[in-house]
Amino acid sequence: METLARLEKRIQDRRGADPATSYVAKLFRAGRPKIAQKLGEEAVETVIAALGSDPDALTGEAADLMFHLIVLLSDCGVSLADVCAELDRREGVSGIVEKSSRPKE
Amino acid sequence: METLARLEKRIQDRRGADPATSYVAKLFRAGRPKIAQKLGEEAVETVIAALGSDPDALTGEAADLMFHLIVLLSDCGVSLADVCAELDRREGVSGIVEKSSRPKE
Amino acid sequence: METLARLEKRIQDRRGADPATSYVAKLFRAGRPKIAQKLGEEAVETVIAALGSDPDALTGEAADLMFHLIVLLSDCGVSLADVCAELDRREGVSGIVEKSSRPKE
Amino acid sequence: METLARLEKRIQDRRGADPATSYVAKLFRAGRPKIAQKLGEEAVETVIAALGSDPDALTGEAADLMFHLIVLLSDCGVSLADVCAELDRREGVSGIVEKSSRPKE
Repeated sequence: METLARLEKRIQDRRGADPATSYVAKLFRAGRPKIAQKLGEEAVETVIAALGSDPDALTGEAADLMFHLIVLLSDCGVSLADVCAELDRREGVSGIVEKSSRPKE
Repeated sequence: METLARLEKRIQDRRGADPATSYVAKLFRAGRPKIAQKLGEEAVETVIAALGSDPDALTGEAADLMFHLIVLLSDCGVSLADVCAELDRREGVSGIVEKSSRPKE
Repeated sequence: METLARLEKRIQDRRGADPATSYVAKLFRAGRPKIAQKLGEEAVETVIAALGSDPDALTGEAADLMFHLIVLLSDCGVSLADVCAELDRREGVSGIVEKSSRPKE
Repeated sequence: METLARLEKRIQDRRGADPATSYVAKLFRAGRPKIAQKLGEEAVETVIAALGSDPDALTGEAADLMFHLIVLLSDCGVSLADVCAELDRREGVSGIVEKSSRPKE
């Protein structure tokens, strides 16, 4: 998963690049509501690909989703390490315990 | 990011667990449309949290999104390694080149 | 479609009702981000139902989506009449003209 | 709300039109997953507009959402009248009764 750490770094590095040549810089320039919109759209495409029958299409959409999630997190000052720390914290709570601690389900 | 690899392994290990005590097993049992629905819902919550002003709330929603994405990918036989390979492949194509190779933008 | 006008009026009437007994009042009380979240979730369920094979399920999800859209619009001070006026305005522009005036497609 | 009935009829009429000149015909030609994707995207934009401060932007996004919902329903053989009948049926069940009959909330 060094891919994700490397991708996060490259995304942060490109933040100040020229929006005319960098898609990442263009996203940051467009602003948070636009980045959030892209994340939402990629999630919709991931849902639809998952219900289809082409695993490669799903792989591509999941990559798009992950990419835009990292851009959105970066824009909000949240790192992948923060998200992983939260996932680790939850993993400490497992089985029936984890389940009863999830109010939403 | 070993967190994500470890989480993916635990999710796959729990697949055959008792749905009464494992949230993951319950999700797999519910079936792909239900897992995809959860992913979509977590993406909506991530979008809304990103537009709010609480980075901790965003961290929590991004963790939920990542978790359900891994469950959905697992259910479809796609691994995080597949998604990272696709991200790496794209990173080989950068700057203006990457941009012009993205038909959607 | 008097159903929708009637529904909109009932939703507005219930705004000040007791959240303990009125789902609509409970939604308004929960606040706009929560109402928007419900709209997003119902849209995800509509997408999934449309890709399934049960038209009755789609009818139910579309009803949920319409209901929560009217609640969200009400909360923002936008009426269904405003939305219809916008749709009418667009219908004045048709065929290739309509198409070229839609920057998103 | 005759607007919506009229819009539904025009959408159905354009189904067989030339995709080169009709956006509606182009959508039907693209197929159900693509129409569902557009619905999901418009819902994301509606969510984001509702959290912004421009009611006109929300009106526009809600019009887009309604438009694509009608196209999706048409593609699935469900009419707005079916959706309104379902909403009417639910309205027969009100207050606390309605609430306790909604398993999701």
